[in-house]
Amino acid sequence: MAGTDKRRKVVLGGPTVVLVDPQLGQNIGMVARAMLNCGLSELSLVRPRDGWPSETAVAAAAGAEAILARARLFDTTKQAVADFRRVFAMTARARDMVKPVATPRQAARDLRRAAAAGEAAGVLFGPERSGLTNDDLALAERMISVPLNPGFSSLNLAQAVLLLGYEWYQAADDTPGQRLVRGRGKPAPKGELANFFARLEAALDDTGFFHPPEKRAGMVRNLRNLFQRAELSDAEVRTLHGVITSLRTGPRDD
Amino acid sequence: MAGTDKRRKVVLGGPTVVLVDPQLGQNIGMVARAMLNCGLSELSLVRPRDGWPSETAVAAAAGAEAILARARLFDTTKQAVADFRRVFAMTARARDMVKPVATPRQAARDLRRAAAAGEAAGVLFGPERSGLTNDDLALAERMISVPLNPGFSSLNLAQAVLLLGYEWYQAADDTPGQRLVRGRGKPAPKGELANFFARLEAALDDTGFFHPPEKRAGMVRNLRNLFQRAELSDAEVRTLHGVITSLRTGPRDD
Repeated sequence: MAGTDKRRKVVLGGPTVVLVDPQLGQNIGMVARAMLNCGLSELSLVRPRDGWPSETAVAAAAGAEAILARARLFDTTKQAVADFRRVFAMTARARDMVKPVATPRQAARDLRRAAAAGEAAGVLFGPERSGLTNDDLALAERMISVPLNPGFSSLNLAQAVLLLGYEWYQAADDTPGQRLVRGRGKPAPKGELANFFARLEAALDDTGFFHPPEKRAGMVRNLRNLFQRAELSDAEVRTLHGVITSLRTGPRDD
Repeated sequence: MAGTDKRRKVVLGGPTVVLVDPQLGQNIGMVARAMLNCGLSELSLVRPRDGWPSETAVAAAAGAEAILARARLFDTTKQAVADFRRVFAMTARARDMVKPVATPRQAARDLRRAAAAGEAAGVLFGPERSGLTNDDLALAERMISVPLNPGFSSLNLAQAVLLLGYEWYQAADDTPGQRLVRGRGKPAPKGELANFFARLEAALDDTGFFHPPEKRAGMVRNLRNLFQRAELSDAEVRTLHGVITSLRTGPRDD
């Protein structure tokens, strides 16, 4: 059953996803998609129930066929992990055995460190219904368990792979927590903003908006802060000038 | 099309998942599962293509039917978000508009803060193929975009909900990054461990293992550290005593 390419060298970098006794080809295809989403490329299969290669896996991979094409096939979990220096095992819940259990976040950080140190790593995922056997878990140095609603924590195979892969990707991603997407618009120069404030405040002075007069200073500050917060672009400042003009002059005689 | 319960009060706590123009009932069911995994309970549907209620959604929910049963139905996105004080929108990629975009992790932290402040929140998810329209995005104060492989970043609907829900759950979860699951076994008292070390080292003295003698101290330390690292339980220390006995005395005359 093992393919001829199982002796191919282990690729360093992302951990190998090892599916033990996977049942449905569709799930294997969806695992490949989740892996590609997260920049993982190495897939190993131990005794896929419905044989290999699998047309239903290819159909479900929808863009991630290359990962299936390079997947390695093994007869036993022991063979599948022989070249790894790190083996973790994803489990829905911690079993009654003495073994460290990590969150996906911590495991992903440690897998990044292992990759940086040149240590090949694999993560075991069990079959859809039953999960990994205790004998397979004993091949791993650590379990990974996802903190989720304890009353409903079971994930499908591709989702479990996705969550680990997601954390793997985040562990080296430097996207800021939040940023402003501006398209083509730069933030307006503060001088343009000051012109706009002067224009707005003059117009509101004309129309008697600032009343009573002793509150004017505070009201002006509030308005300026509101527009500062919006981080206006050049075009948006021009638009707001137009809004003031339009509100002041009313319907045009076209 | 809108159900009679759409006037039910918004539940504070987890954000409402708002599916805009969802196509397949199966995907709605899988969204419900992902929500329950992550402790989210509030689902709103805007114009589900294949009608509502949906048998295929119930079949796919597999344990999360209660979320479908309490889902609210709306004719427009605008109506669906009217009661929220915070609206974020999940997008595969940042569009050409000036709007803040956050990671799921940052968004989840901010949603937790909003919940603590009593601010009802919703997160918009677009239809499977096309994503949210620009008009729907304009109803949101912020976009959420998942940092993933830029060459293959599209997620299915349930996976997108799962990643946001996962971060929502993690943002208030205090599971340590790694811990040792011990089952019923406590770590052995250090005195038991010292007895074991003495026994092992005496046996190895007998068999001439420590050679040359000047290296004995370092070899002893290495062995002790190795077994310390394993954080042995009482039962495991007893097992190792048995291993030494067995190795020293050879086959039993049974």
